[in-house]
Amino acid sequence: MSEEISASEIDALLARMYPFNRSLTGDGNRQTLNVLRELVPLDVHEYPCGKEVYDWVIPDEWHIRDAWIKDSTGNRLVDFQANNLHVVGYSEPVKARMTFNELSSRLHVLEELPEAIPYRTSYYTRSWGFCVNSQQYKALQRSKEQFEVVIDSAFDATGSMSIGELLIPGAKTEELLVSTYICHPSMANDNLSGIVTTALLARTILARGRPQYSWRFVFVPETIGAIAYLCHNEKIMHKVQGGFVVTCCGGKGKLGYKESFVGDSLVDRAVRLAFRDKSIDAIRYPFQPTGSDERQYSSIGFRIPVTTICKDKYYEYSEYHTSLDNLDFVNGEQILESVDLYLDVIQILEENSAFTSSVPKGEVQLGRRGLYPHSGGSINQPASKNHRRHQEYQELDVISWLLFLSDGQNDLITIAERTGITYFDLLRVARKLMSQAVIQPAKDN
Amino acid sequence: MSEEISASEIDALLARMYPFNRSLTGDGNRQTLNVLRELVPLDVHEYPCGKEVYDWVIPDEWHIRDAWIKDSTGNRLVDFQANNLHVVGYSEPVKARMTFNELSSRLHVLEELPEAIPYRTSYYTRSWGFCVNSQQYKALQRSKEQFEVVIDSAFDATGSMSIGELLIPGAKTEELLVSTYICHPSMANDNLSGIVTTALLARTILARGRPQYSWRFVFVPETIGAIAYLCHNEKIMHKVQGGFVVTCCGGKGKLGYKESFVGDSLVDRAVRLAFRDKSIDAIRYPFQPTGSDERQYSSIGFRIPVTTICKDKYYEYSEYHTSLDNLDFVNGEQILESVDLYLDVIQILEENSAFTSSVPKGEVQLGRRGLYPHSGGSINQPASKNHRRHQEYQELDVISWLLFLSDGQNDLITIAERTGITYFDLLRVARKLMSQAVIQPAKDN
Amino acid sequence: MSEEISASEIDALLARMYPFNRSLTGDGNRQTLNVLRELVPLDVHEYPCGKEVYDWVIPDEWHIRDAWIKDSTGNRLVDFQANNLHVVGYSEPVKARMTFNELSSRLHVLEELPEAIPYRTSYYTRSWGFCVNSQQYKALQRSKEQFEVVIDSAFDATGSMSIGELLIPGAKTEELLVSTYICHPSMANDNLSGIVTTALLARTILARGRPQYSWRFVFVPETIGAIAYLCHNEKIMHKVQGGFVVTCCGGKGKLGYKESFVGDSLVDRAVRLAFRDKSIDAIRYPFQPTGSDERQYSSIGFRIPVTTICKDKYYEYSEYHTSLDNLDFVNGEQILESVDLYLDVIQILEENSAFTSSVPKGEVQLGRRGLYPHSGGSINQPASKNHRRHQEYQELDVISWLLFLSDGQNDLITIAERTGITYFDLLRVARKLMSQAVIQPAKDN
Repeated sequence: MSEEISASEIDALLARMYPFNRSLTGDGNRQTLNVLRELVPLDVHEYPCGKEVYDWVIPDEWHIRDAWIKDSTGNRLVDFQANNLHVVGYSEPVKARMTFNELSSRLHVLEELPEAIPYRTSYYTRSWGFCVNSQQYKALQRSKEQFEVVIDSAFDATGSMSIGELLIPGAKTEELLVSTYICHPSMANDNLSGIVTTALLARTILARGRPQYSWRFVFVPETIGAIAYLCHNEKIMHKVQGGFVVTCCGGKGKLGYKESFVGDSLVDRAVRLAFRDKSIDAIRYPFQPTGSDERQYSSIGFRIPVTTICKDKYYEYSEYHTSLDNLDFVNGEQILESVDLYLDVIQILEENSAFTSSVPKGEVQLGRRGLYPHSGGSINQPASKNHRRHQEYQELDVISWLLFLSDGQNDLITIAERTGITYFDLLRVARKLMSQAVIQPAKDN
Repeated sequence: MSEEISASEIDALLARMYPFNRSLTGDGNRQTLNVLRELVPLDVHEYPCGKEVYDWVIPDEWHIRDAWIKDSTGNRLVDFQANNLHVVGYSEPVKARMTFNELSSRLHVLEELPEAIPYRTSYYTRSWGFCVNSQQYKALQRSKEQFEVVIDSAFDATGSMSIGELLIPGAKTEELLVSTYICHPSMANDNLSGIVTTALLARTILARGRPQYSWRFVFVPETIGAIAYLCHNEKIMHKVQGGFVVTCCGGKGKLGYKESFVGDSLVDRAVRLAFRDKSIDAIRYPFQPTGSDERQYSSIGFRIPVTTICKDKYYEYSEYHTSLDNLDFVNGEQILESVDLYLDVIQILEENSAFTSSVPKGEVQLGRRGLYPHSGGSINQPASKNHRRHQEYQELDVISWLLFLSDGQNDLITIAERTGITYFDLLRVARKLMSQAVIQPAKDN
Repeated sequence: MSEEISASEIDALLARMYPFNRSLTGDGNRQTLNVLRELVPLDVHEYPCGKEVYDWVIPDEWHIRDAWIKDSTGNRLVDFQANNLHVVGYSEPVKARMTFNELSSRLHVLEELPEAIPYRTSYYTRSWGFCVNSQQYKALQRSKEQFEVVIDSAFDATGSMSIGELLIPGAKTEELLVSTYICHPSMANDNLSGIVTTALLARTILARGRPQYSWRFVFVPETIGAIAYLCHNEKIMHKVQGGFVVTCCGGKGKLGYKESFVGDSLVDRAVRLAFRDKSIDAIRYPFQPTGSDERQYSSIGFRIPVTTICKDKYYEYSEYHTSLDNLDFVNGEQILESVDLYLDVIQILEENSAFTSSVPKGEVQLGRRGLYPHSGGSINQPASKNHRRHQEYQELDVISWLLFLSDGQNDLITIAERTGITYFDLLRVARKLMSQAVIQPAKDN
């Protein structure tokens, strides 16, 4: 299904955007959106800093040119140019000479992962700091000298927060939302994987022509961006029937999905079917109100059911929020597994329909329409007894179920759930039956 | 309960009707209905050939006098007189001389069951053929000569399809349906067992006097007969609350039941209770839209919930649709097990009622009515503690549950399900309580 | 929570009331109510004998001064003064000389518990009898002489049945019922444990000031007392939303609870939460319409859901309804376990409320309110991954769930059930959030 999306294309996008210093605001985010605009015609909105959005205020725009900790010989012991995780996000500017003892409360290190640089931010409390690996920490600790400590950053209260948006209008006014967050700097699974996946899904839907649902794609900084987006679009969000927060979908681990707060909304059911029909034993993550931007989209005033397909969900892998969440951990092949699932889910939702039978009384005479696969009497001899044991099915079963349930009430998702027949087998047979005019799409669909 | 029905009576009926050459139409069906009319006063309807019934047309009447494959010495290598399964049902006439190579595409044989003659039909496509066992097939194959191949059959477009019907009017206008199919030639489980069982159930209900429900008994060729019956009775079928397709209920295997499309309709629940209360661990067959005439009765335009009690369900036994489904495989004792279950189900439905208590506030004083089984304080000493462990119950438990739930809402089936008390224990105690005027049947029942 | 109730206070109350000869009527009941009035200001109602109450009539008042079986030397072989269980409850007066053979049909003994005197009554059929242990029975049996058999009892048709009642008015008109029975003579678990527990719960609620619910405490003889109480209060019982029959809560065995007839009423859910949150693996007793006064309160005309917390439920322990149900079997420490659970249940019900968020759109900014426990990025590092495996939770989880579900619909009981967070952790955090004005109680609560 994802014939137009290759692992190598994904790998190239990852390599290109990985170095950008994304944050809540700033140029790293704009660079990221600019690359995405090569894939899809995103609208980029700039929400002004200082604006109140519900319980929050959009923070000042943050710029950082450089940062380091130098020894007296001018060696950069810690260097922002080497890895933008070295600086605590939203660090205020500093230029000082400090001993290790003076500096140590500003240093973040992970004892349990000595090679990793941790990822830290201080968005809403002015502060500064450096994140280092264990070797760097020990080197600083051993040294008796005064370090040169510089963070060349600035805040701009007249700046703005950048948001990417693409609305693909469909035949229905009902919308589905696909949202991802663009605020994490150089980490691959969290969340470059989500950014790339979301853009490629948007490109695929666009390429297929007018969809059934209207699809709303949103690229925002996590939390403040989603809140600001909701605040700017409050009046139209009631059209959104469900959605996806795309994040952490390219790691080395097992596929899984986080349920919506509803648990069995249409999007939940489509996700579960996609996994079931691919025979993937996915990890199920029950809804938690901690997590990503479902916290905003599903909040009381909006209550949009939102799910997430994960391959190494946030919180659940040891490289999470460190420099080890890099391009060794994530690659195009892995992301493609999630992309394929999302594309199945999208098609399941797009093609979902209930049908009405043109022969509601008694059964359809399949034989004279060439739909009956066997001569009379011979079906279900001992061999088919065995096939039943293995819970397989044949086309006649698919036809029979579809005709039996085409009363205008049961959509394909419901039929797939009830019968165990794969959604796409149902869809294929439904098209065959439509071509014979024995069923047609129900009016209210 | 089936004191009037003996295994030997069933065996005699089986032996008598087994040889008849039943099909969609023709004399074998009329012979069968004539035997049944000795048991119950069936109305026999003749639906004219060529008539359109929903998506179908009633086929021409089929007659067959004889058929054979003879060698040059006049020996019948395959002989319709020996077994009517040898001829494909609805074979057109043929009279020819053919070598094996010319004949072979017309031969049906089962490699996996060498002794069996398979059962085959070609109802709606004009064709002809012979069904043979493996020995016969090999003998034909070895011979180099030209065979005389004759099927002395004929189609009559001015004929009709025969239907048997018996409506036993009850106190209620709500009806229950019992349908069986009469189109299978010499096979015992499929479906002589169903034909005999249905007729004996009808005779029993008739003998018991006016029932509560109106009972509609129907004997039809499978599929086309049920469709034609529905088409001729469309306006009154809304009265039918549920029903049974009686088939395959006399084999050597385990008892089981196929659920209705609803799964927990009143007839499903009655069937489950009957099994439960007889402590029979029945095989559960979830509804499938393939199967027998529930395909028609439960179709979108009718949606009548229909269940089937089976003893060797169609598809599930190796003798199915072959000459091995014979009177060695089926006998009266085995059919009697199904008859007893059906009779329990019928009584469960017939006697089902909700009750209203004449003492809704506080409990009934059982003692002064002679309903309290013990002197005060002595109930439930250690001995009764043990009895509780074994999930048994005593009459006081039955009385207490009945009185507690006699609020006009809970019928006996519901009470039996909730409490684990057998339906017939509840019924017996309900009658005792009615005789003491502490409960009475609820009005809407 | 039960800091004001000590095991020693309970032990003293048990010792004081254990000897009273309680029955349906009479001075033993009045003595009991008088002791209880030292704890709480009970109203005592006297319902006249002979009065019809629904299907029942209040029996004559029963008095007994003394009773014995003496041998010819004047030795009391059986002596009411030694144990009031020796006389069948409501025995009519007798003064006779009898041999063992004449007496034997009047003797009750338990072969399976030789040391025990059984408890027997004959309330509604005039009779008399003695209950003896196995040794006494054998001594009587061995003796050839005529015994002096005396029961110095009397019935008073002008007497009355005594009922204790305390209504503690709350902020709501909705009531909760706590009922116990006072008709069992010298047995400790059944039901001195229930009497003492009920009185202490009433005292605790009174001491805490105006409750939310109105609490109706009732002390009645079992069955006839509850029926008479309902009959005298029929018009106001619709206010009662649920309740408890307090009985058998002080034995040596495991804690358990009997479900209401509804099974998941608010009181059932509160009881289950109290057990769950104390990590007590309680025995679950599904509703049975046999039992105690839930038979009356839950009868068709009232349908009040009633639960019972048990520590050795009636029927389920071998000392039940014998003289072995004594102060060796029951003590204050054991009763205190049940009291603590009931107090938790009471608080769960009293504090239960749904909340509305003052930030329904998007999430609350916890950080600027000092509610966010961590700096950005650092939450849920590998260590917290482990914590999640153990299904523990942190304050941020509690805060997040509460805010997410504070839509005015979900009360604390529902939130506790859905999330697995303890009720009292939710309550503590809800108070913190209320103090920050981010949630407030929903109006309809």
